[in-house]
Amino acid sequence: MLIEGRHFLADAAPRSLGHKALAVNLSDLAAMGAAPRYALLSLGLPSADAAWLEAFAAGFFALAERYGVELIGGDTSRATERTISIVALGEVPAGVALYRSGAKAGDDIWVSGELGGAALGLRRPDIAEAARRLHEPEPRIELGERLRGLAHAAIDISDGLTGDLQHILERSQVGAVLEYARIPRPGAFRGLGDAELERDCVLSGGDDYELAFTAAPRRREVLAALSEELGLPLTRIGVIQPGAAELVVRDAEGERMSYRRSYDHFRSRA
Amino acid sequence: MLIEGRHFLADAAPRSLGHKALAVNLSDLAAMGAAPRYALLSLGLPSADAAWLEAFAAGFFALAERYGVELIGGDTSRATERTISIVALGEVPAGVALYRSGAKAGDDIWVSGELGGAALGLRRPDIAEAARRLHEPEPRIELGERLRGLAHAAIDISDGLTGDLQHILERSQVGAVLEYARIPRPGAFRGLGDAELERDCVLSGGDDYELAFTAAPRRREVLAALSEELGLPLTRIGVIQPGAAELVVRDAEGERMSYRRSYDHFRSRA
Repeated sequence: MLIEGRHFLADAAPRSLGHKALAVNLSDLAAMGAAPRYALLSLGLPSADAAWLEAFAAGFFALAERYGVELIGGDTSRATERTISIVALGEVPAGVALYRSGAKAGDDIWVSGELGGAALGLRRPDIAEAARRLHEPEPRIELGERLRGLAHAAIDISDGLTGDLQHILERSQVGAVLEYARIPRPGAFRGLGDAELERDCVLSGGDDYELAFTAAPRRREVLAALSEELGLPLTRIGVIQPGAAELVVRDAEGERMSYRRSYDHFRSRA
Repeated sequence: MLIEGRHFLADAAPRSLGHKALAVNLSDLAAMGAAPRYALLSLGLPSADAAWLEAFAAGFFALAERYGVELIGGDTSRATERTISIVALGEVPAGVALYRSGAKAGDDIWVSGELGGAALGLRRPDIAEAARRLHEPEPRIELGERLRGLAHAAIDISDGLTGDLQHILERSQVGAVLEYARIPRPGAFRGLGDAELERDCVLSGGDDYELAFTAAPRRREVLAALSEELGLPLTRIGVIQPGAAELVVRDAEGERMSYRRSYDHFRSRA
């Protein structure tokens, strides 16, 4: 459930909002290796604002059609705050769905695309590339489907890399070491020269909707080929270790870095 | 999506609300002959009111467990108005789902239970039987499943008998005649002696969540036996006719009665 003033601003572009509201749901399906099929959309709106609704629908349906998602139900109601509730349904063959619980000691940790762009867009809406990442995230549907049988565990980066990876560690009962310098990030950070902001965005910034997943080292070649085929960077950023569900992040010198765990906390500075 | 102040009052008993919010969704499944399986629940709440949430959950889960419905997802958010969004998922074998479009000329029109009680409860909350119908409707799950292969068309009475039947007529491209005197209604109306209120509640009052369905006359005996088996009154109240999608209601003398079509309109008097 997305609520105006809490999950999006009153002046958010309705077309982007229609896209993003569906995208975040499709992203959850992608993280399980599911093919999206259907969606249900409930809207609470303060008034029958035809222009807003038309733009919202344009963003929603453009994404839905791209992935063959059929709108099969929902309703509209009057509400004080614009309120959006979406359920997306997908299909995955029995036995190959991806879970958070499948990571194994020795697995590589991979991430798709670049991280930190959406969080940067929240602080620096003037940086177009970052703002676009924040407002129009791309669900990694094809990647999720192709990871069936390849990845051991997967999750989408909605709350921030470290927080979301922690879910995998806890469900899988394993630890992990990340190499900060390997994590791909938008070029915009280079020009800013703000190391703290960069670290917060890359390690703890949410809303990127990239996939983080783990896979056996023998899968490196096939994953490199998949990256090429999809035209989507797939980058090894760390390794799963035996032991407690602890996430260690090391800088380029191998020193242990501190990081914010909670995206909520982080966000409240905005 | 159910929103405080619009779909329910701020002081609505949270346990009843948890029951009803799920019940209205299960009722839609019943009307299609589907067996409920899963539910997703999204809540927007102004504050973390543990007592409210506990009572809401108690009502929700008591009903869910009764019908084997598993809660498989959802979320909670902060919202100015309490907001409840539920999706219920059910299963029905291929080819036997009930639709609004299957009514045939010559079919009997049947209704389960009694009509008008919920609308009476809206006006006369002091009448316990009526208030219970309004706040704790019982979805007709078993009946819906048993009507597979028996009924030609079905719908649940959420907006009022005449309005909901009109949906069947339009989808099926048929007309209908209802006999007002045959429509079963709560005994409470007898003591009130308000013929206009009774007519509005019985013909146009929503929120009863009984099933209206059509079936061939040769099914009368098996439906009477089903009624007995389920301990649920099933009453013939009219007949489907060839021709335009027009609904005629006749009184005990065979005179045509006028009725309100719109539940919204009706409700605004409350």
